[in-house]
Parts: sequence; structure tokens; C-alpha cells
Amino acid sequence: MPEVIALGEALVEVMRPGKGIPLDRPSVFLGPYPSGAPAIFADAVARLGMSSGFIGCVGADPFGRCLTDRLQADGVDASRVEVVTDAATGVAFVGYDEEGGRQFVFHIAGAAAGRLGPEHVDAGYIQGARWLHITGSSLAVSERMRDACYKAVEFATQAGLMISFDPNLRAELMDPDDVRRLVEPVLTHASIVLPSGAEARLLAGEESDDAACWALLERGVQIVALKRGAAGSAIFARGERIEVPGFQVSEVDPTGAGDCYAAGLAVALLQGLDVVQAARFANAVGALAVTQQGPMEGAPMQEDVARLLST
Amino acid sequence: MPEVIALGEALVEVMRPGKGIPLDRPSVFLGPYPSGAPAIFADAVARLGMSSGFIGCVGADPFGRCLTDRLQADGVDASRVEVVTDAATGVAFVGYDEEGGRQFVFHIAGAAAGRLGPEHVDAGYIQGARWLHITGSSLAVSERMRDACYKAVEFATQAGLMISFDPNLRAELMDPDDVRRLVEPVLTHASIVLPSGAEARLLAGEESDDAACWALLERGVQIVALKRGAAGSAIFARGERIEVPGFQVSEVDPTGAGDCYAAGLAVALLQGLDVVQAARFANAVGALAVTQQGPMEGAPMQEDVARLLST
Repeated sequence: MPEVIALGEALVEVMRPGKGIPLDRPSVFLGPYPSGAPAIFADAVARLGMSSGFIGCVGADPFGRCLTDRLQADGVDASRVEVVTDAATGVAFVGYDEEGGRQFVFHIAGAAAGRLGPEHVDAGYIQGARWLHITGSSLAVSERMRDACYKAVEFATQAGLMISFDPNLRAELMDPDDVRRLVEPVLTHASIVLPSGAEARLLAGEESDDAACWALLERGVQIVALKRGAAGSAIFARGERIEVPGFQVSEVDPTGAGDCYAAGLAVALLQGLDVVQAARFANAVGALAVTQQGPMEGAPMQEDVARLLST
Repeated sequence: MPEVIALGEALVEVMRPGKGIPLDRPSVFLGPYPSGAPAIFADAVARLGMSSGFIGCVGADPFGRCLTDRLQADGVDASRVEVVTDAATGVAFVGYDEEGGRQFVFHIAGAAAGRLGPEHVDAGYIQGARWLHITGSSLAVSERMRDACYKAVEFATQAGLMISFDPNLRAELMDPDDVRRLVEPVLTHASIVLPSGAEARLLAGEESDDAACWALLERGVQIVALKRGAAGSAIFARGERIEVPGFQVSEVDPTGAGDCYAAGLAVALLQGLDVVQAARFANAVGALAVTQQGPMEGAPMQEDVARLLST
């Protein structure tokens, strides 16, 4: 039984190799790269040497094989990944404009990924673990996937698992009240929340990042890990705010860095590190994640993290 | 009002640049290339200088723009292309194994392309034209798209339009009886059928290509144009079988060649050429189509065809 479980959208990414190549004209793409925020998290946990499991759906096609082969090769329990025969594996196309802003075309909700529903979540599997991870992106895919996440949170809460929540919402596309309503059943039970500044402000309805993080703590979250990209992270816990600086690396592809950071924090806390050490470990995991093309490609092993931490 | 109308799946193709690159591992893709058999047909007709219209659905995304921009730039009437906001533009991923066999991942039925239904087909638009083209691939996408095609055939039959039918089915994936049942409402009213040998044998339930083409004529089709790839085509009409040799060109990408051949035949017959001259013209159009990467990229202009015909 895996110690850490994630569920949600499994997909492959097909991406432009550089900035300023629009998606509406023929050019070069690279892919398929295994992706999907919760799948990246599960994979990164396994690479760090802790047992993890992923619950989701892929198609009976080469992209589905690409995903399940990768998860299994990295040691993720993929026994709960359903291979559906009447829909193709989810795909996200990603391009970058000249300023590095991202442009997307998604085939997710209508694809195999969107088939994940509450029937895929069983109490025994969840309650045999120690940690459950939920990403906000999964809550926005479909009502069925949202219900699957809520059900997993319910089982995890009953059994006293740690629950981490990465808001990871393209919040600019949604009404703030809708976002808060979607997120509420997860946020109420989350032990750890890992927002960006913008996500924290949106969730808490506050004007500053810090005020928002304090407000999240006040509503019962134990640790708020404010993700600050290359600058590292700030930990809000037990009445303290601790700045944890990032690592200088050469960035190739930032996709998946937040999911890898979350995986690092979960693994480090489960291994008994205190929260500041754990955040430093997670910063190192996130930093290494951006050094390779592809969302999962840079997810590091324990020894890679140890090497970066010792420099 | 366009003289030639096609309807069905509009999609973009994202393809491996060469043979032997499996779809289940990260590598290079090229795309998006405007595609979808009936869209290629409509585009090729317009490039040959005859007015054409396309009925279909795309997403409100860069791939949809890629398609509509291309159709409009080539002069296709895209006023009946609906831009849907809650599904992404259809995509076909194509890879080639070492032997040149094709491997696919499709996002079509669950994508914007799959939204095409009978409500998109109106009598006035169809009956103002002289020619309707149906491709078998559209009949297999969804019941709604099939019903749209049947409705268009009904309107066209009422008004005495020429109806061309390109079986274009991945028949090896389907039960032969299912294929014949799907195709029947189109085949009954088709003036021209453009099968490959395998498709002709399947539709007619005969053992040889020739016997199958004769059988199709006997059931009321006026012209059977048997497509023979690089070898050209054979015309069955008015009790005669006429071999029409192909043109030697250097093949870059065969995708879309059959749709371009069908466009060439429609344009030439509408321009008053006799059927053998028309087949020679269509062979030239099909030959030029394979000389460029991408399904629509090689669709030639009249002057390109004239140049090849005069060599």
C-alpha cells in the first residue's frame, strides 16, 4: 500500500521548444511528456524514494502507455490507473509567447482523463496511506473528477491522513466566488496548503500575500507554504513566518516545479524533518525540476537533492 | 453561394517528421496542420479556383484559428464553421512505423469537431450548390455527425446536386456489415464513388477490385473512380473501364492525397471535362498533394496542375 496518494488528471504535454512560436501556425512541438499536476506529484514522490500511488484514467493508446510506463518505471503504484477504451489520453498543448506567458489548448475533460469519478476512489486504498495530495486543477476539470477528489478527502479525513492542497488553479479564468466554493470542501480539511501569492490572496480574500497566508492558518491549516518561484518559499506555521531561500539553477522548463515542490515537502515531513528543513528540501526539489524539458523529466532522486543541499 | 460543399470533421494534424518515431516516447512533432478529410477536400476545391464551402465545428482556440484562417485564405466559405467555446479543436496525432504504417491518437468525437450535427445543415445552403461531397470518415465520428451528413445528402438529392462519396473509412477497425449499413444512405444517392480497392471490395462484398467497381455501377453509381495511389486511377463509367496513369513525383507526405484527388475530379467535371480528362486532372492534383508536408499544404493551384499536365 502506498504511503502517499494523489488523484486527478493524467495527461501528456506537447510543447513548443521555445518562446515566441504561436500555436496557430505549423512549427515544431516536443512530446508527449507525461504530465498532469497530480501525476507529476505522485511521480516526484516515488523518485524521492517514498511509495506513492496515483488514481486516474488514461486511454488505450500510445500516450496512455507513455504515462503508465513512466509512472511504473519510477515506482508509482499505477494499479488504480484505469485504461479506458473509448476515449484518448488527455493532452495539453503548451506554447510560450515572446514574454514567456503561456498559451494552451487542452483536451482533458472530454478525454480519458475526464472519466475519473468517485467510483474510482475506495476507502481501503486511501485509508491505508499516510498522505493525500489534491490539486485545484482537478477540481476544475469536471463535476465527476471534483466529486472523486471530495470523496478521497472525506476518506482521508476519517482516517487522519495528512492532506496537502495545491490550489494550482488558473484562477484568472474563473469567478473568485466559484473558485472559493469549489475549493472549500478540500481547504476545510487540508493540513498543508501550498499557494502562490495570487492564489493565497484569492482563497483568503486578502490584499497582501502575508495577510492571506495568516488568514489561511487562522482557519485551521497547520502549514502554509507560500511558493515564490526562483526566490524559494515562505513557511507560515505555529505563529511564525520563515523565509526559506531558493537555489540558483539554470531554468529550462518551469512546468511541474510546483508539483515537485509539494512532493518534496510531503516526503521531507513524512521522513520527520522539521518544517523549515522540509521547506529547504522542497525548494531544492523544485529547483532541480526546472532544469529539464518536460514536466516530470526534472523530478530529482534523493541523491540529486542531497547534492544540491550540500553546495 | 458556393458551388461545391463538404461537411464533417475539421481538425489539425500533429505529426512525426519521419518514420520509426514511436508515439509513446518524447520526440519531435510538426504541427498544427489544418486537416480533416472533408475540410481538405473543400480547401483543395477552392485552391483550384472553384467556390467551395465547408460546414463543421472548431474550438475557440489557436488550432481553430489555424483552420479557419487557412480555409478563408484559400477562399473557402467558412461562414458555416461554428466556433464552439466549450470544447477544443479536434486533433489527430500521426506517427509512422519503420515500414511507413500509420499510428494515430485521435481527439475528434469528444472535441469541437464532434459537435457537428443536423442543426448545422440547412436546405438553402446545400441546394444553392451544384456538388456535395461526403467522406466515410465523418460517418464514423458520431451519430450526430452521421445524421448531419445524411441530412445534407437528402437536401442534395432533392435538388439534383451531384454527390461524390469517398469511403475513406478505416474499415479494418470495423465490422463490414456495420460499414455497409452506415454507408448505405449515402451510397444510394451518390453519383460518384471514389474508393480504394479494399474499400470497393468491402462496400460491394466482392473478391476483386474490378468486380467490386462493376457492382457499384450496377447499383446506380454513374462513375466509380478507383484510387490506386502512385499508379493513378481507374475509371469505371458507361460500361467501360479506363486506366488513367499517375504522375511521378517525389512523395513527402501522402496524407490528404485522396481528398485532393476527389477535389480535382469534382472541379474538372464541373468545368465540363469528360471523365477521362477529369481523372487525368485529378491524378495530377493528387500527385502534387503528396509533395509537401501536411495534409492541405500540397493542394495545388490550377496553374500547378496545368504545368504538371503539360510535362
